[in-house]
Amino acid sequence: MLYLVRMDVNIPPEIPEDKAAAIKQEEKAYSQALQKQGRWPHLWRVVGEYANYSVFDVENNDELHDLLQGLPLFPYMKIDVTPLAQHPSAITASGN
Amino acid sequence: MLYLVRMDVNIPPEIPEDKAAAIKQEEKAYSQALQKQGRWPHLWRVVGEYANYSVFDVENNDELHDLLQGLPLFPYMKIDVTPLAQHPSAITASGN
Amino acid sequence: MLYLVRMDVNIPPEIPEDKAAAIKQEEKAYSQALQKQGRWPHLWRVVGEYANYSVFDVENNDELHDLLQGLPLFPYMKIDVTPLAQHPSAITASGN
Amino acid sequence: MLYLVRMDVNIPPEIPEDKAAAIKQEEKAYSQALQKQGRWPHLWRVVGEYANYSVFDVENNDELHDLLQGLPLFPYMKIDVTPLAQHPSAITASGN
Amino acid sequence: MLYLVRMDVNIPPEIPEDKAAAIKQEEKAYSQALQKQGRWPHLWRVVGEYANYSVFDVENNDELHDLLQGLPLFPYMKIDVTPLAQHPSAITASGN
Amino acid sequence: MLYLVRMDVNIPPEIPEDKAAAIKQEEKAYSQALQKQGRWPHLWRVVGEYANYSVFDVENNDELHDLLQGLPLFPYMKIDVTPLAQHPSAITASGN
Amino acid sequence: MLYLVRMDVNIPPEIPEDKAAAIKQEEKAYSQALQKQGRWPHLWRVVGEYANYSVFDVENNDELHDLLQGLPLFPYMKIDVTPLAQHPSAITASGN
Amino acid sequence: MLYLVRMDVNIPPEIPEDKAAAIKQEEKAYSQALQKQGRWPHLWRVVGEYANYSVFDVENNDELHDLLQGLPLFPYMKIDVTPLAQHPSAITASGN
Amino acid sequence: MLYLVRMDVNIPPEIPEDKAAAIKQEEKAYSQALQKQGRWPHLWRVVGEYANYSVFDVENNDELHDLLQGLPLFPYMKIDVTPLAQHPSAITASGN
Amino acid sequence: MLYLVRMDVNIPPEIPEDKAAAIKQEEKAYSQALQKQGRWPHLWRVVGEYANYSVFDVENNDELHDLLQGLPLFPYMKIDVTPLAQHPSAITASGN
Repeated sequence: MLYLVRMDVNIPPEIPEDKAAAIKQEEKAYSQALQKQGRWPHLWRVVGEYANYSVFDVENNDELHDLLQGLPLFPYMKIDVTPLAQHPSAITASGN
Repeated sequence: MLYLVRMDVNIPPEIPEDKAAAIKQEEKAYSQALQKQGRWPHLWRVVGEYANYSVFDVENNDELHDLLQGLPLFPYMKIDVTPLAQHPSAITASGN
Repeated sequence: MLYLVRMDVNIPPEIPEDKAAAIKQEEKAYSQALQKQGRWPHLWRVVGEYANYSVFDVENNDELHDLLQGLPLFPYMKIDVTPLAQHPSAITASGN
Repeated sequence: MLYLVRMDVNIPPEIPEDKAAAIKQEEKAYSQALQKQGRWPHLWRVVGEYANYSVFDVENNDELHDLLQGLPLFPYMKIDVTPLAQHPSAITASGN
Repeated sequence: MLYLVRMDVNIPPEIPEDKAAAIKQEEKAYSQALQKQGRWPHLWRVVGEYANYSVFDVENNDELHDLLQGLPLFPYMKIDVTPLAQHPSAITASGN
Repeated sequence: MLYLVRMDVNIPPEIPEDKAAAIKQEEKAYSQALQKQGRWPHLWRVVGEYANYSVFDVENNDELHDLLQGLPLFPYMKIDVTPLAQHPSAITASGN
Repeated sequence: MLYLVRMDVNIPPEIPEDKAAAIKQEEKAYSQALQKQGRWPHLWRVVGEYANYSVFDVENNDELHDLLQGLPLFPYMKIDVTPLAQHPSAITASGN
Repeated sequence: MLYLVRMDVNIPPEIPEDKAAAIKQEEKAYSQALQKQGRWPHLWRVVGEYANYSVFDVENNDELHDLLQGLPLFPYMKIDVTPLAQHPSAITASGN
Repeated sequence: MLYLVRMDVNIPPEIPEDKAAAIKQEEKAYSQALQKQGRWPHLWRVVGEYANYSVFDVENNDELHDLLQGLPLFPYMKIDVTPLAQHPSAITASGN
Repeated sequence: MLYLVRMDVNIPPEIPEDKAAAIKQEEKAYSQALQKQGRWPHLWRVVGEYANYSVFDVENNDELHDLLQGLPLFPYMKIDVTPLAQHPSAITASGN
């Protein structure tokens, strides 16, 4: 089941730079593990912004929330979730 | 090169039903031809709305505008385009 | 799996009154059938507006879209969907 | 009498972590006491956000304000209240 | 129990002028009856707009919705409801 | 002459708690003096928010600005002013 | 007493052209009469829009509402009113 | 050539009070010099807000930007500029 | 003197197709004449929308308003104007 | 390929003044290098704001993102990107 997710990152200046760098490193590892599992099939940068559009493929709403809440950058992100469904004109099933 | 595109369809009640049905039929054929060419790799329905999120893979801005302007439903749609770039944490190239 | 859905109804003045009345009658029957099946567990009127907040309990995004798209008033509604998850402080499971 | 309430939590980085943890613990206890009394019948997490949608069942506006203002996280929340009424198509009374 | 209500009137040009005049006449009578009963204690014109701010004094949400839905201009109005509570600095009880 | 005023209070966390408490105490005294003079005839709490809707009865725009600017909480409030006029359906004069 | 007023004109295509022309002619006469009386001291076109910013100088809110409601184009305008006060740095009184 | 300008002032709490007072004093002198030169012909306080609406009379866009950027409070203001033109119903030339 | 102008075109379905085509033809001629005169130096299509961003080079606000108001599509456009000034980091003068 | 980019700069007061001055100096050098290469053909100040509208001429989305992310002021800017296409009425090719 697919969801489109937009994440806008805003790390406040109070966070020391080395702490911020460490969080970003954890974020990258966390994200790549989910990508390899096929649960985060698409991850794109929004041109000109510290933001991404992602597609998640999960079993249900609870699983999606757990994945998102587990993001190391979660406390510093604004997240917007749009549930997706099969489109009648699509030539492939939406879960693929 | 990828773009995320949201389309919201709003066919005004002045359009006769059979004309609307014909336009939708053309739209489907037009969309599926582009999907088969690989230029419209993702097409998802937004749950609960007469709207879709799509990803287009084209050579440049002009090509994208031509494709969108050619949509049979173009006169009845609100379209919003977001250019996408490679994300540094993505494990695949953004064009794939 | 639960979703909060807000529906705002706006029947344009072009629709004849008897046709509008017939659609509303079908809407009521459609809604009550889903309520009896347990798939539409909550339906509330927003005070002062021709609008409702509803909770749906379905298997997945596709099922929700099918239910909403099947609403007789669907062409005349603005619909907004929010996926819900279990809250860690809730004393009952969110599916109940 | 029912109200839909959305709460968005935003604890500023100036609050020390242990103080924040203590407030969240009080919040949980406060919330669960009201749930057990039947005055907070529904509490759902908004997927991907530090936010919830809740339904409150109280005698009047003043009681609702007192409950909300008493939330330990009240100083750090944006709260939005929508009064609800019985829907003519609902198969159960809205207070149930 | 008090609620602040803003009503914005927008009668579409399709409505014939005599029908519009008749509805406005009914609206005035309906409003004045409620004012005399004490259920609509304040009614103010917003300067420069075909809109009003009103205060209603009713027993509960359902009563307010019934009053508003019964307004002859209801199909042509955008209505926004804000529930009010006793303010701790007010020198009179909010129901007065 | 009446004005509807909405005030949203937001005391930043940099203000020490005892200073904030002192300002709120002054605010209450200031508000009650104006209420007793009849210049601030209505003061209501917005349910669920640290905000109020108020009605002021003053001679002119300058007097209203002076009253509002004199509020001890003025530096920490977002204020929105709507001038009101006599409504043709009101059964009492708007200044009463 | 001064007010800044923004008016956005939107004459729907249902209004016949000669009727629209007549209304605009009346509007011009109405406006110029008020300008000559000193009650509408400033009238500026917003560049690129069928809109104006105006300053009115009237005795009170009711007078302003009467003037605005009397505009021949009133049914086709969106009007936004901002009450103005004397600025402490202004070198002339605001009523001049 | 005239422009309508709205300025909203927001001095952050980090600025020491005496520094803020000094900036405001400079602002007043700067503003009054421009008023005396006829380049800032109108300056009004927005009722209830730390904001003003102003009219500037300058030769061109560059001159206006230089004047605004030179305001001592410029770093603490949100500024919104609307270019104005002669209105066909105005009885005086817009530059007067 | 330069201005950035965004134009969004929305021709209502009531306009007959041949009339719309004629207006668009006049619009093109009008636009190209101004481009050749150097008064409309840039004209770009917004990708995916019936809209453009343009840069105008004119003597003053009045000239810009006259040009825009003269557009054959003016009655069917939403126009937004942003005055531009020389940027201190630009390597060419802004009028070029 | 052209893109319109709006940048709004907001340097938080926590940044020391000399550090801010150094960043602005680097920004100017970075911007002028790109201008000389022809990749940043237009740079305009928005009148009254610490903001600019720019036009970039690049090969693709990724190149644009790299240029923008490399801006020394990138962490302190809100950036909004609009892809541009050739306009059918333009008398020159949009890449020129």
